[in-house]
Amino acid sequence: MGEFELIERFFKRNANQADVGIGDDCAVWTPRAGHQLLVSTDMLVEGRHFLSTIDPARLGHKALAVNLSDLAACGATPKFFLLSLALPTADEAWLSGFSRGLFELADAHACQLIGGDTTQGPLNISMTVIGEVPDSQAILRSGARVGDDVYVSGHLGDARLALEAFRGHISLPQSVFDLARQRMETPTPRVALGHALRCMATAMVDISDGLLGDLGHLLKASRVGARIEWSLAQGLLASNSLWLCPDALKMNCVLSGGDDYELVFTAPSSFRYGVQDAAKASGTPITRIGQITLSEELSVHDVHGQAMSLDLPSFDHFA
Amino acid sequence: MGEFELIERFFKRNANQADVGIGDDCAVWTPRAGHQLLVSTDMLVEGRHFLSTIDPARLGHKALAVNLSDLAACGATPKFFLLSLALPTADEAWLSGFSRGLFELADAHACQLIGGDTTQGPLNISMTVIGEVPDSQAILRSGARVGDDVYVSGHLGDARLALEAFRGHISLPQSVFDLARQRMETPTPRVALGHALRCMATAMVDISDGLLGDLGHLLKASRVGARIEWSLAQGLLASNSLWLCPDALKMNCVLSGGDDYELVFTAPSSFRYGVQDAAKASGTPITRIGQITLSEELSVHDVHGQAMSLDLPSFDHFA
Repeated sequence: MGEFELIERFFKRNANQADVGIGDDCAVWTPRAGHQLLVSTDMLVEGRHFLSTIDPARLGHKALAVNLSDLAACGATPKFFLLSLALPTADEAWLSGFSRGLFELADAHACQLIGGDTTQGPLNISMTVIGEVPDSQAILRSGARVGDDVYVSGHLGDARLALEAFRGHISLPQSVFDLARQRMETPTPRVALGHALRCMATAMVDISDGLLGDLGHLLKASRVGARIEWSLAQGLLASNSLWLCPDALKMNCVLSGGDDYELVFTAPSSFRYGVQDAAKASGTPITRIGQITLSEELSVHDVHGQAMSLDLPSFDHFA
Repeated sequence: MGEFELIERFFKRNANQADVGIGDDCAVWTPRAGHQLLVSTDMLVEGRHFLSTIDPARLGHKALAVNLSDLAACGATPKFFLLSLALPTADEAWLSGFSRGLFELADAHACQLIGGDTTQGPLNISMTVIGEVPDSQAILRSGARVGDDVYVSGHLGDARLALEAFRGHISLPQSVFDLARQRMETPTPRVALGHALRCMATAMVDISDGLLGDLGHLLKASRVGARIEWSLAQGLLASNSLWLCPDALKMNCVLSGGDDYELVFTAPSSFRYGVQDAAKASGTPITRIGQITLSEELSVHDVHGQAMSLDLPSFDHFA
């Protein structure tokens, strides 16, 4: 199977939102009046972002999901994506599974593949997503204000729990492991929530490297701090099994476990009902975990109001 | 050096054409009224698209050049690019050279870096470029019409000549090799020519895999054929040294040697003066090599008008 047949068979799809899709030197589209465009890119490498044991359909889902998550974090509506693939071999079973998982998620978000590249090489998946928002409605990292509430979507810690089990650091009952693994391998990009929070959230970021690390980026960009209540944040614990784990592992999974692709965002406390409505309308649970502070520090407080001492670095690819 | 420091030191630049550049989940920009947007992506892998011996500054140039070449092939003006890098290690000397070569070319085209990703892994460079054209002025592959002239920009064959020398198939005087190698490693994206050909060229494609192969894509998309005159096409020979090579190698380099990143395009013969003016205005030599035909075949004819029998497949990453 040659390069062009590979594209034709597994990746060429109707892209009617574009003027020109796959098959020319560039894709071409006409932007919508009154809207800004957003773009983001993520590269996934075997052994760093996924394990060799991952099912190809789940990998197809995950590769797009982590990119859509960046659009979600800005409140954007996905429009298009581009896919570059370096593959050791043109394995039909793998390509068939990968493209199935990929397009299931893409179709669910009406996000159309309009370009890409394929080459032989060590497995590498690089994707670029393009989205849009009405003018001035993109939610950036830099808008958090003192007194804003801090929220997190969904649950945290499952992806880390699965990784700890894969590494042999802990052992889990099969059913718990399967669930945690599924969360790690097929994260849900919170696109609907991101959209629903336009005009309400003052700042937002997605959690790829860990809650404290990614919240830290938001705080730095906004030049503020945050006080997180562990009594509230522990409500983010994903699986029941995590509740039974030692406290250290629990906190590690929730506060610095990466790969969950939930959203952490801030909103004025006057919008509490509006934020709850947005969560409900988008079918996404959210948890309020603390408040933005003037002092540019990020602290986590225990049930007695005491600042906890934490040493939970977030993930760095070259650290 | 961590991931964030790496980005800060080598890749964070002013991106004043965007509303939000590097540092948020997405880059954000406001599209220009009356313009369409174009996007393309290319992935470069060591050993496939470049040799391990390449100077990092040249590699930075080449990675962007092959992407800009896709915009050029549509007549688009470059606006933005995104860069994803998988690196075995965070080597400062390499990064410094790579980013210097990259930004020299980017600045020459006022093309701004607005996003990216870095990770550890086998060396892989994935880039996405975004450009614009006034509405309906994108030059596609599908517009060639019977009777149109066929042109090629610049010269062809040097990249292939260098590759043959690298492979030890031929030996070249040092000065000839150096020049051929430079053409292979730092191709010139024909952005100015592409722009100048708007409203004149009926179809265009860039030559990455070889003249006959890429022209073949254009013909297929336009549902036409072409008759190429070798007496004209041999004027594309790049270096003087190629003139001294055996005929077979000469034809191989010109007709199917890849990696030149010149443009092949078609235009009505009534525009011959206009096309020449566009070439002159953009400082790009062009050569007319043949004509579009009704029969959907691509043939090359010798000086006696005889169709030559050729077996010159273009490059396929999985063939």
